[in-house]
Amino acid sequence: MGVDRRIVVACGAASAWALGWLLPVTCAQEAKAGMGLPSWNEGPAKKAILDFVSRVTRAGSTDFLPVAERIAIFDNDGTLWCEQPMYIQLAFALDRVKALAGEHPEWKDREPFRSALAGDSKGLAVTGERGLVELLMATHAGTTPDQFARVVEEWLATARHPRFHQRYTECVYQPMVELLALLRANGFKTFIVSGGGVEFMRVFADKVYGVPPEQVIGSTIKTLYEEREGVPTLIRLPEIDFIDDKAGKPVAIQKFIGRRPTMAFGNSDGDLEMLAWTTAGTGPRFGMLLRHTDAGREYAYDRASSFGKLDRALDEAPKRGWVVAETGRDFRKVFHFDP
Amino acid sequence: MGVDRRIVVACGAASAWALGWLLPVTCAQEAKAGMGLPSWNEGPAKKAILDFVSRVTRAGSTDFLPVAERIAIFDNDGTLWCEQPMYIQLAFALDRVKALAGEHPEWKDREPFRSALAGDSKGLAVTGERGLVELLMATHAGTTPDQFARVVEEWLATARHPRFHQRYTECVYQPMVELLALLRANGFKTFIVSGGGVEFMRVFADKVYGVPPEQVIGSTIKTLYEEREGVPTLIRLPEIDFIDDKAGKPVAIQKFIGRRPTMAFGNSDGDLEMLAWTTAGTGPRFGMLLRHTDAGREYAYDRASSFGKLDRALDEAPKRGWVVAETGRDFRKVFHFDP
Repeated sequence: MGVDRRIVVACGAASAWALGWLLPVTCAQEAKAGMGLPSWNEGPAKKAILDFVSRVTRAGSTDFLPVAERIAIFDNDGTLWCEQPMYIQLAFALDRVKALAGEHPEWKDREPFRSALAGDSKGLAVTGERGLVELLMATHAGTTPDQFARVVEEWLATARHPRFHQRYTECVYQPMVELLALLRANGFKTFIVSGGGVEFMRVFADKVYGVPPEQVIGSTIKTLYEEREGVPTLIRLPEIDFIDDKAGKPVAIQKFIGRRPTMAFGNSDGDLEMLAWTTAGTGPRFGMLLRHTDAGREYAYDRASSFGKLDRALDEAPKRGWVVAETGRDFRKVFHFDP
Repeated sequence: MGVDRRIVVACGAASAWALGWLLPVTCAQEAKAGMGLPSWNEGPAKKAILDFVSRVTRAGSTDFLPVAERIAIFDNDGTLWCEQPMYIQLAFALDRVKALAGEHPEWKDREPFRSALAGDSKGLAVTGERGLVELLMATHAGTTPDQFARVVEEWLATARHPRFHQRYTECVYQPMVELLALLRANGFKTFIVSGGGVEFMRVFADKVYGVPPEQVIGSTIKTLYEEREGVPTLIRLPEIDFIDDKAGKPVAIQKFIGRRPTMAFGNSDGDLEMLAWTTAGTGPRFGMLLRHTDAGREYAYDRASSFGKLDRALDEAPKRGWVVAETGRDFRKVFHFDP
């Protein structure tokens, strides 16, 4: 009965924004699916998660946390969805360069666009960070946020992952989607804290992860507000506002959430500071790194990867008490489809 | 029965984060208090609010909004709490200068500190915006967010409003607190979008308004993350990050909330762009300006006020369909105490 009560109570807390309250069936389903974490193998990672959640939600537990303090944050690329063979947002930018090339004949002869159009990843790499930023600005700015969202939406509806031949929004880790649901079913508010562009992620985060726009934190470009012919308008400018990566992540957590999270999930060195900040707090805290070890079903990479390099953070994990989950060992399924 | 059902359903949606779900009595109280708006006089402002809320929440209404889209934003100074005879955060800064003066003997002879210490408001005014910023940086930076929150908390526990002789957190408008509760009881997520410092407001917003830290948006100073002697640490820097006022408000709304609000409440020209952005959206939208017209119970000010000047926005109100509430006409009570 204790468990039943917890599930039902937590459902009201978690899914109300999504009408869960009105739909007890959906709610119970989320809780049931979540409680079992069916796509996780039995093992230390699953056990650590369930033990922790039980510890902070059980009435009378010395580590009990009020619902308002249950904050869980997730990196996105490589933690919630696939980031190989390249960041999905970079794949979007490259496709977008092609789509816009007709309006920009000068791109044929100008880097980084020349390499992007030619599919020359080595040439692109030579342009370095400056080239990457230029590419992102040319493909992400100049529109209203609504227009940009429609462009992303259309792209996500048609683009396919080069290896799995699925829409990118299908290439989300089923065990992590269940984990998000489990935490919400236990009263946690789930946030994304990612280096990805916030307006890119918001297009799918609610549908795919159940994380509403106001709980998605990411990198931003500057935005201008002005009335254009009497119409209040926001315009995305080709200028970086904030990079939500590495030491930027705890800064963004403080700015957007305003309190230290209880649980943090990441998979790369870009998440080191976010996990360190989270788990250094007093009271019960939980940090987890997801290590990609399954070349057969997905990808195996860590210390030397171009995308999602996991090196320093992996060394820090035992010192800081972080759980290391491995896709090969701990994921019973990787995606909802069989790769 | 229709009404009863709405109240109960909305309670689950609104108060779950604050344990409302676990405490149906509290929940029902909030809904009951909210539904009546007992501190509002009958009149066009109260009627406009209740009509709008009914229109967007009644099942079958053509303007029905799913709970996830019910976003209401509130300015703070002059909209939720008193901003006369000066912004409360400025009163904090002036008291803080006095508290820190012992560590800064040089302030005796240096503006804006000399004037601040002497209580010379004219001398302070002469130092202009630059002086004000210097004052804010000296009193708001150099600590961790937690340390700063404790300083604010201690100040709020002892400082008193010079006219009402009440703690500042008592000088909140009772009708607006009821309005926040009414909206939450109807499934709205309530946000503060204020020019005030976000870390200042977060100290009391949850307790006083029921708005949790992650729903408080305000001006920010830069913050640095680093490990200090192995301890993950955030330090507030004496450098402006973002001013959440005027055209900055729609920009912040997009950055933090990621969708256009349904309802916006403000009281000054600093809120013009926020109301314009909100009410220019398609579908049902609601904008309200609060005009201070009651010198007896509070203050009467608008077009020429140093704090909370309401001039251009008042001219725009009829053109943009904004409701203008007046403290003298529409507030049955101003504060929970009798001034």
